[in-house]
Amino acid sequence: MSHWHGNRYSEISVVLIEKIDNKRYKFFVGRCPGRLLTSVHSKKETAMPETATASPALPIRPAAASALSASSSALDVRLAARSGVFTGHTSGVASAHVQVNLAILPAALADDFLAFCERNPIPCPLLAVSKPGSPALPALGLDLDVRSDVPRYHLWRYGERVAEVNDLRAVWRDDLVTFALGCSFSFEHALLAAGIPLRHVSEGRNVAMYRTNIPTQPVGVFQGPTVVSMRPLKAADAIRAIQITARTPQVHGAPIHIGDPALIGIADIGQPDYGEAVDIHADELPVFWACGVTPQAAIVAARPEFCITHAPGYMLVTDKLNSELLLGAQA
Amino acid sequence: MSHWHGNRYSEISVVLIEKIDNKRYKFFVGRCPGRLLTSVHSKKETAMPETATASPALPIRPAAASALSASSSALDVRLAARSGVFTGHTSGVASAHVQVNLAILPAALADDFLAFCERNPIPCPLLAVSKPGSPALPALGLDLDVRSDVPRYHLWRYGERVAEVNDLRAVWRDDLVTFALGCSFSFEHALLAAGIPLRHVSEGRNVAMYRTNIPTQPVGVFQGPTVVSMRPLKAADAIRAIQITARTPQVHGAPIHIGDPALIGIADIGQPDYGEAVDIHADELPVFWACGVTPQAAIVAARPEFCITHAPGYMLVTDKLNSELLLGAQA
Repeated sequence: MSHWHGNRYSEISVVLIEKIDNKRYKFFVGRCPGRLLTSVHSKKETAMPETATASPALPIRPAAASALSASSSALDVRLAARSGVFTGHTSGVASAHVQVNLAILPAALADDFLAFCERNPIPCPLLAVSKPGSPALPALGLDLDVRSDVPRYHLWRYGERVAEVNDLRAVWRDDLVTFALGCSFSFEHALLAAGIPLRHVSEGRNVAMYRTNIPTQPVGVFQGPTVVSMRPLKAADAIRAIQITARTPQVHGAPIHIGDPALIGIADIGQPDYGEAVDIHADELPVFWACGVTPQAAIVAARPEFCITHAPGYMLVTDKLNSELLLGAQA
Repeated sequence: MSHWHGNRYSEISVVLIEKIDNKRYKFFVGRCPGRLLTSVHSKKETAMPETATASPALPIRPAAASALSASSSALDVRLAARSGVFTGHTSGVASAHVQVNLAILPAALADDFLAFCERNPIPCPLLAVSKPGSPALPALGLDLDVRSDVPRYHLWRYGERVAEVNDLRAVWRDDLVTFALGCSFSFEHALLAAGIPLRHVSEGRNVAMYRTNIPTQPVGVFQGPTVVSMRPLKAADAIRAIQITARTPQVHGAPIHIGDPALIGIADIGQPDYGEAVDIHADELPVFWACGVTPQAAIVAARPEFCITHAPGYMLVTDKLNSELLLGAQA
C-alpha cells in the first residue's frame, strides 16, 4: 500500500477497499493518524490508537466518488482514482487544489512540444514536465503517479482516439514524457470564491469551448488554432473576472476576448466545438479565456504514433494550491 | 514674483511676460538656473550666468500655451495658468503628472461633501482637501494656488452657472474649502503608454460622458446618478485597459461597465451628456469608467448658494506623478 505514503500522509499501514454496490464501498483501515482518514471516519474514530490493526469493524464509507467533495484533499482524489474507485470528472472536487491538463508524448516529440508550450504560454501554461519514462511529477505532489491518478484517459494513435481508459499501467512506455499544463478550474475556483456565478458550474455542465481564428505560434509539428473556453457574465462581473484571472497567468491569465464571438472566428456560439453550450442572457457578455484544449488539439493534429491525454474534465489533481498561483503569492 | 519660487524651482529673480499677439509671447527672464527655463530657452541660452538680469534680448517664446507639452513640468503649467498666459485645456500637458478635478464649496457643506466622496470613492476619488479659506493643497504641490492655477473655472450660484473665469482671486472667500478629486487623465496616460489607442485623444476631442441609472450613495444634500466617461476599445485592448486601470483606484480604477449602454441607462450613445461623441467601430466595445463629473453634478444639483468647479477638461495639474498612483507603487 505504498501509494498511501508520502507527503503529509503517512503511517497508514493497511487499507483495503471492498465494493458493496455501485454507490457504496467498505474501507478497512488500520494505523492511520494521517489527514486522509479524517475525511473517512468520524472525529472519534480517527482518534484510533497507532497500534490498531486492520479491522472490518470500521464504518462503511459511502460511495467513494460521491464522498469526494470540494474539501477533499488532492491525495484523496488521486488515491480514489488510483484504486479505480473514482472514475468521475474532477470539476468541483478538492477545489483549493490545482488541477492540471495532461499531455503524454513519446520523447522524440518532447523537445518540440516543450518549445510549443513556451511559445504559447497563455493557452499552454506549463506547470511541470516529467523525466522520460517516469510517472512522477514531484513538483505537483510526492505521492503522484500519472499512470493511475487521473480518473479517465484518452489514448491516441496517429491522431485518432483509440481508447478511453482509467489506468495507463498496461500501456506505459519507457519513452513517455508527461507535460502538466494549467487548467481553468484554478481560476474558476477564484471566480466562485469572489461571488461571480458561472453558469456551466451551476448547471453542472462541462464548459463550452470553441476553436478560434487566433493561430498559435507553431513549433515543429505542433500548430493550430487557439481554443477558448467561454463563460457568459454580466458586465460588472466580467470586469472583476478579468482582474481576478489576470493574477493567475499560470492558468491562462486574463481573457483573450470579450463580446462578439465572430471577431475571433466563432460562427455559432450555440455550437461549441468541445464541452456543452450554455445560454447567454441579454444582460451578459460572452467572455473567452485561452483553454488547455489548445495543446491537446495541436497534439492530435500532429498525429504522433502514440500519445495520451486526460479525458476533458477528468484532470490530475495536484498538491499545489490554487492560491499559490496568484501573482505575488508564490513561495 | 514669489509664485515662481518653491518646490524644485528657485533662483528665478525676474520674469516678465509681454503679449505680442494671440500666438506669441515675449519672456524676459533673469537669474534662472531652474528647470523651468530649460523648456523656455535653448540649452545654450539656459547656461546664462546667474548674475544675468532681465533682458529684452532674450528669445521670444512661441505661444506659451502651445509651448506647454506632455513633457512640461506641472509647475510650468500652473505658472502659465497663474500668469494668464495659458487658458487652454490641460489634456496631454505635463502628462506624467496627476491632474485633478476641483470642487470648491462653502465650509457649511464641506463635511457632507467629504462624506459623499468617502461613500462614493469610485466616481469621487478624493486626493486632497484644503483648510477653509486656504488656496493651498500642499499634498499636491508646494507652489500651488487653487485660485489661479487652473486655466478655466466655472462659478455657480444656486445650481446655475453664472460665470466662466480664468482666476478666482476676485471672488475668493474665507469659508471656501477645496476638494481635489482624481481624474481619468491619469489612467489615460497609463493606457496610452501601454499602446492602447484612445479615439478622443487622437481626434483631439473631449471624452464622451454620460449620466447613468447607477445611483450614488447620497449624503446630506449630495446625491445623483453616477456619470461615466466612455472609450471605445477593441476587446483585447479593453481587457488590458481593465487590468491597467484596476491598478489606479485613486483615479476611478477599473471600468464599471462594458458593452450595451442601455444596461446602465444610456439611451443614445451618440448623444453624450457632457463632452463630445466619438465613433464606435464594429470591432469595438464601449468601455465605461466612473467619472469625476459625478461629484460636480451632485454639487450642482444640491444648488449651494455659491460654489466653484474647474471647467471640464481644464484641470489643476499637480506635482504628484501618475506613477505614484499605481497600486503597490505608493511611496
